Amino acid sequence: MPKRIPTRQLIDGLLNGERRALARAISRVEDGAEDAARIVQAAFAHTGKAHLVGITGAPGTGKSTLVSALAECYREYGLTVGVLAVDPTSPYSGGALLGDRVRMTGHSGDEGVFIRSMATRSGGGGLAKASAEALLLFDAAGFDRILVETVGAGQAEVEIAAVADTVVVVEAPGMGDEIQAIKAGLLEIADVFAVNKADRKGAERTVAALEMMLETGGGAAQTVMHHGQLMEAGGVVSDDSGEGWSIPVLKTVAVSGGGVARLREALEAHRVWLQESGRQADRERTRLARMLQSLVEDELRARLEAALSQAQRQELVERMLRREVDPYCAATEVVKRFAE
Amino acid sequence: MPKRIPTRQLIDGLLNGERRALARAISRVEDGAEDAARIVQAAFAHTGKAHLVGITGAPGTGKSTLVSALAECYREYGLTVGVLAVDPTSPYSGGALLGDRVRMTGHSGDEGVFIRSMATRSGGGGLAKASAEALLLFDAAGFDRILVETVGAGQAEVEIAAVADTVVVVEAPGMGDEIQAIKAGLLEIADVFAVNKADRKGAERTVAALEMMLETGGGAAQTVMHHGQLMEAGGVVSDDSGEGWSIPVLKTVAVSGGGVARLREALEAHRVWLQESGRQADRERTRLARMLQSLVEDELRARLEAALSQAQRQELVERMLRREVDPYCAATEVVKRFAE
Repeated sequence: MPKRIPTRQLIDGLLNGERRALARAISRVEDGAEDAARIVQAAFAHTGKAHLVGITGAPGTGKSTLVSALAECYREYGLTVGVLAVDPTSPYSGGALLGDRVRMTGHSGDEGVFIRSMATRSGGGGLAKASAEALLLFDAAGFDRILVETVGAGQAEVEIAAVADTVVVVEAPGMGDEIQAIKAGLLEIADVFAVNKADRKGAERTVAALEMMLETGGGAAQTVMHHGQLMEAGGVVSDDSGEGWSIPVLKTVAVSGGGVARLREALEAHRVWLQESGRQADRERTRLARMLQSLVEDELRARLEAALSQAQRQELVERMLRREVDPYCAATEVVKRFAE
Repeated sequence: MPKRIPTRQLIDGLLNGERRALARAISRVEDGAEDAARIVQAAFAHTGKAHLVGITGAPGTGKSTLVSALAECYREYGLTVGVLAVDPTSPYSGGALLGDRVRMTGHSGDEGVFIRSMATRSGGGGLAKASAEALLLFDAAGFDRILVETVGAGQAEVEIAAVADTVVVVEAPGMGDEIQAIKAGLLEIADVFAVNKADRKGAERTVAALEMMLETGGGAAQTVMHHGQLMEAGGVVSDDSGEGWSIPVLKTVAVSGGGVARLREALEAHRVWLQESGRQADRERTRLARMLQSLVEDELRARLEAALSQAQRQELVERMLRREVDPYCAATEVVKRFAE
């Protein structure tokens, strides 16, 4: 068993951009280790520099390959890239099914790229918290660009990418009605669309459909609504009107790198726009408000567990099972005991 | 605008099994109407009779068609069927993309089938709560079998189906590596596997792969773990050892109805097994414990919002943005004010 690095040493290593320290720090955050909060607290003062790009889309659109190609493209400009994959289908996950087929080997010798996957088993809230903290650690470790990849099915996963500075929604032609339907919820959060696998039949139609939806549905207007909702949820309302940014629909062929340079340009343009328009701070406010909310809820949940014993809880469930008490009355009882 | 039915009248109609009353009651629960809690409370005493079947799987496996065929099959035995679709890709959703292509028209004249879709926009917790309450309403309205369909990508969605009495995980051959990988997280919750689209190439291989995984990975053992986790999360630990139930892997061709009779038989067999082994109550304990937990958290969240003004919250976020306070310290401040 490897020796456990002391927290202070881990933090120093992280802030020096050491990969092993970063890897271990992320593991501690993911495992909910005792010193996880201390690590995040120490890192926090050194965050806010990276450009955070969320990449989401239905399974099978080739997001992971696109992320890989994009990372390569950033490297050509001398930028360091952190990748966080919270997509259970992403091939870097090293899970049982894909362990021997990891495709992202192109970067294995490159110190400027760091790839980390995160298990989705920790459940909705846990995953959102762990990934938000991991992104702060990437940022504190000095990565210039951070790519967070999530599967675009399931509100919880989508929202992890949706709070990035720039959100790329990946589509692909010819995925069938059922999968296409997933994207309905994704239209509203895109800052950039990438129609990947654009060498396939139907790519033009997918591009045209997206462009039409942007024109008629008012993509920018919908972006406002979405980000507005997030901010309201987090308690911060802001005038993120989206004016001055026109959502591009770009064709990419990630496997050959086609169109990826153009995608990188669009991301950089959005980054500049965010900064010049002052919207960068709005996006960060949204992220921080959500993080605050989730930490507060964790703390309340912990206090709740301490307030009510396992036996008391079980007894309440037994009474519900016998229909002696309904769920709402049972909840009121719990809250009453908690408030005492 | 239709006249608003008084709550008492709505409850009476619901308990009489009136479809319009059920539809409106579900809408009120979904919208979080003022009388939503009262409706659920009144319904609760009349629940616990239906057999609740969760159906989940990756997009494109044909879950919706299978649900439709299964409902038809139950009808042949004179059983009434409620369907709750919380899958954004399910064709009954009537969303913008699929509005004119609703495929489930076979049941339109049948009073014994009631289909309801639920928007996934309400967010993780909200959706879980609204769907759990809708299932109670179906139950109170007297439906014999309730099918809840969720997309098997995204932990939050999966868990809605995972707390059913019987969980069907739907697979399909030849969906590509990326989509197949999703199922890793689904293996552990299945009571029954349905390999749908079994007339396609590769069906035998999919069946063989699942059977091998069940043998080597120990399907039953994993089921224990999963249900154990859920119960722990909800505060109830139970010895749901899964002994005596061997998870079947069935081939279906939902579009033609092939294999669906066999699937129905397997579901009935599992229902009988649950009752005879006493596991039925365990599954219900899990559901009730989760519902209790979610209601308590809602209440605490509401109290939290009341305790901290919008301005106070915004000010805290601004201080985080300026790196004057880290997220953990900010959360401690909020909890402190809440506890005062």
